[in-house]
Amino acid sequence: MRTLLVALPATLFCGSAVAQPANVPPAPTTTPPADSRPAPTNVLGAEYPRVTDDGRVVFQLKAPQAQRVQADIMATKYDMVKDENGVWAVTTPPLVPGFHYYQLVVDGTSMNDPSSHAYFGVGRDFSGIEVPEKGVDYYLPKDVPHGQVRTLWYRSTVTGDWRRCLVYTPPDYDASPSARYPVLYLQHGSGEDETGWTEQGHAHFILDNLIAEKKAVPMIIVMEKGYAGRAGQAPPSAAPPTVANGTIRVGGRPGGMNAFGEVVVKDLVPFVDKTFRTIADREHRAIAGLSMGGNQACQIALANLDTFSWLGMFSGTGIGLSTAPFDPKTAFGGAFADAESFNRRVHLVWIGLGTAEPNPFPGSIKAFKESLDKGGIRYVAFESAGTAHEWLTWRRSLNDFAPRLFR
Amino acid sequence: MRTLLVALPATLFCGSAVAQPANVPPAPTTTPPADSRPAPTNVLGAEYPRVTDDGRVVFQLKAPQAQRVQADIMATKYDMVKDENGVWAVTTPPLVPGFHYYQLVVDGTSMNDPSSHAYFGVGRDFSGIEVPEKGVDYYLPKDVPHGQVRTLWYRSTVTGDWRRCLVYTPPDYDASPSARYPVLYLQHGSGEDETGWTEQGHAHFILDNLIAEKKAVPMIIVMEKGYAGRAGQAPPSAAPPTVANGTIRVGGRPGGMNAFGEVVVKDLVPFVDKTFRTIADREHRAIAGLSMGGNQACQIALANLDTFSWLGMFSGTGIGLSTAPFDPKTAFGGAFADAESFNRRVHLVWIGLGTAEPNPFPGSIKAFKESLDKGGIRYVAFESAGTAHEWLTWRRSLNDFAPRLFR
Repeated sequence: MRTLLVALPATLFCGSAVAQPANVPPAPTTTPPADSRPAPTNVLGAEYPRVTDDGRVVFQLKAPQAQRVQADIMATKYDMVKDENGVWAVTTPPLVPGFHYYQLVVDGTSMNDPSSHAYFGVGRDFSGIEVPEKGVDYYLPKDVPHGQVRTLWYRSTVTGDWRRCLVYTPPDYDASPSARYPVLYLQHGSGEDETGWTEQGHAHFILDNLIAEKKAVPMIIVMEKGYAGRAGQAPPSAAPPTVANGTIRVGGRPGGMNAFGEVVVKDLVPFVDKTFRTIADREHRAIAGLSMGGNQACQIALANLDTFSWLGMFSGTGIGLSTAPFDPKTAFGGAFADAESFNRRVHLVWIGLGTAEPNPFPGSIKAFKESLDKGGIRYVAFESAGTAHEWLTWRRSLNDFAPRLFR
Repeated sequence: MRTLLVALPATLFCGSAVAQPANVPPAPTTTPPADSRPAPTNVLGAEYPRVTDDGRVVFQLKAPQAQRVQADIMATKYDMVKDENGVWAVTTPPLVPGFHYYQLVVDGTSMNDPSSHAYFGVGRDFSGIEVPEKGVDYYLPKDVPHGQVRTLWYRSTVTGDWRRCLVYTPPDYDASPSARYPVLYLQHGSGEDETGWTEQGHAHFILDNLIAEKKAVPMIIVMEKGYAGRAGQAPPSAAPPTVANGTIRVGGRPGGMNAFGEVVVKDLVPFVDKTFRTIADREHRAIAGLSMGGNQACQIALANLDTFSWLGMFSGTGIGLSTAPFDPKTAFGGAFADAESFNRRVHLVWIGLGTAEPNPFPGSIKAFKESLDKGGIRYVAFESAGTAHEWLTWRRSLNDFAPRLFR
């Protein structure tokens, strides 16, 4: 059984962004379909990429000297066709709604699309495209009171350097100077960083909307970059994990990530409790994450049950990529051994998965849940219909998870 | 005389990042110089680009199929050389210290360097590299109390959409719940956005350090994206201005930017005064900007002297790219006509320039200052020795300007 802090590749396994197989050749075009509009992820003023009503995406790139240009949406490649002006274009089949990382491949070299905003994912600033989900606005800005997303710097005694974290404060935070709030620590996936949950995930808008509808209690959310090597060690890498011959390589360096739990408990939680008006006890502290972040959240919570009492795992659990069940009596330092005590102390164990997620996620999460069942550990299971290992699954996860906290 | 809101190209004129002309062919290498280290602008864990002690930069890109690869630092191009593994590399001559936008050009197609963070500049997310300035730390994080950079969303009645602004709050803001603070509105340059002053400019660290040394009074800084079309008009574009046949084209669309002054006065200032503990009067409100932002600051301040009483223009003034003097009796709606009154009401007019800036900036700023002299308008002139039209000039500008405010 693997209980090491193993990174789940948030992005390596997203290959299946296409809603239906492309059995017909793509239909390239340089005149956009009438029902298309610029993607919400475009840079200001960029007309391409465009998204049609049914979720097809029109990509375009000017590259007169290139011999071959492709749009690469997480390993599904679409050949683009050049017009007389050297402008390459392709229209994809309908894509799954949600946020997808992608690249343009020019004669074999992958590059960002200059027309799309870059999002930190896959270990670097990477093009992303949002295919809007019809009739859904829980993650969009609405005419409700808005919180703030604050960027803060703190010095870590563990890593010996300055670290950046992002902190969401709820709408009434400044206006209620004597109020104190519970805190959710919320982690991104492998290859992403502390900006993922707001830039890609819209966590701040999700919470604004939940709080406005009184579906969630006002809370603070803390997002950290999640990579941490101890002072004196080689710096960690955000490179996504690679899987070869059944071996997972994380980050590329020894010690690159194994100090994160220590950073959270020794540096981050005290910094947040000192800086914000928190309710600084375990009853009012939750930790959750997606994919690799779900693994981190599980590992950190179980090793620190005096600090956390609410746990969320979005498309990733404490067993990483393993699909083998664990022994609840001995795993995780025996945290699950006394189910009655665990169920009393830990107010929520929440486990989510998209129904379209590729292997090994369905099997891994099934194994984790079955192991909890065997041990008599109570948990809430959530399924996101039709979504894969990507941000739409995780927005829905947060939207279901956050209302259950601190009640 | 040009008093229209004309964009100054913050980035189009930065071609001269090279400290000394490259009369010898570049010396490509795939083994980095011993005195080189990864640039501070790299993504986590990236070994390239590297910067040497004397400011040379080693770029590297794997592109086995490419025929020609170049590093393009604001129009100065360095040919890279391919090794047997398909890895291209070049070592530049020493560059001017500071922050430089750049691209890699693969067979004629410009792309971001996957190893560098992307910064919003030149109208899109664009690679940037920091060449450290020796012995200087006023813009680096230090062991002093740190403020926060808050991201907020507000609805603009002028543009009819949700807009994002960044707000720096000084270190003692949350700890002093009854204190009120003066506000500096601080604008980026053309092609950049509201993230420029923190990501590229390090404005938050500059203020943290000034406040810790009691060189500046604690203040709030507001940064907005600066592009605004009225509701119902075509959306504005952040595309950088182009100059052809003596004609400046800004943003590419009519009306794309001309509503920004209105947004500031009707929406942004009231939103900030409602949201933060400001001292909400003209005596405690400053506006400044760089390049295009200096033009905006000048236009907005002079048209709203009941709102602002401190003005900073960093490498850009109210006459845009013009080098023709103006008539202080009639220009800017007559704001300078009564010098005695202007000098009494406006507490600071601050004009800065790097000594290595290319045309038309030296001539334009000279013309502006001479016109002020002619009109008897008091101002402070600042020169940044040896720096060009780039962020090192503007960090130095802020470091000189901020201490003069609100005293």
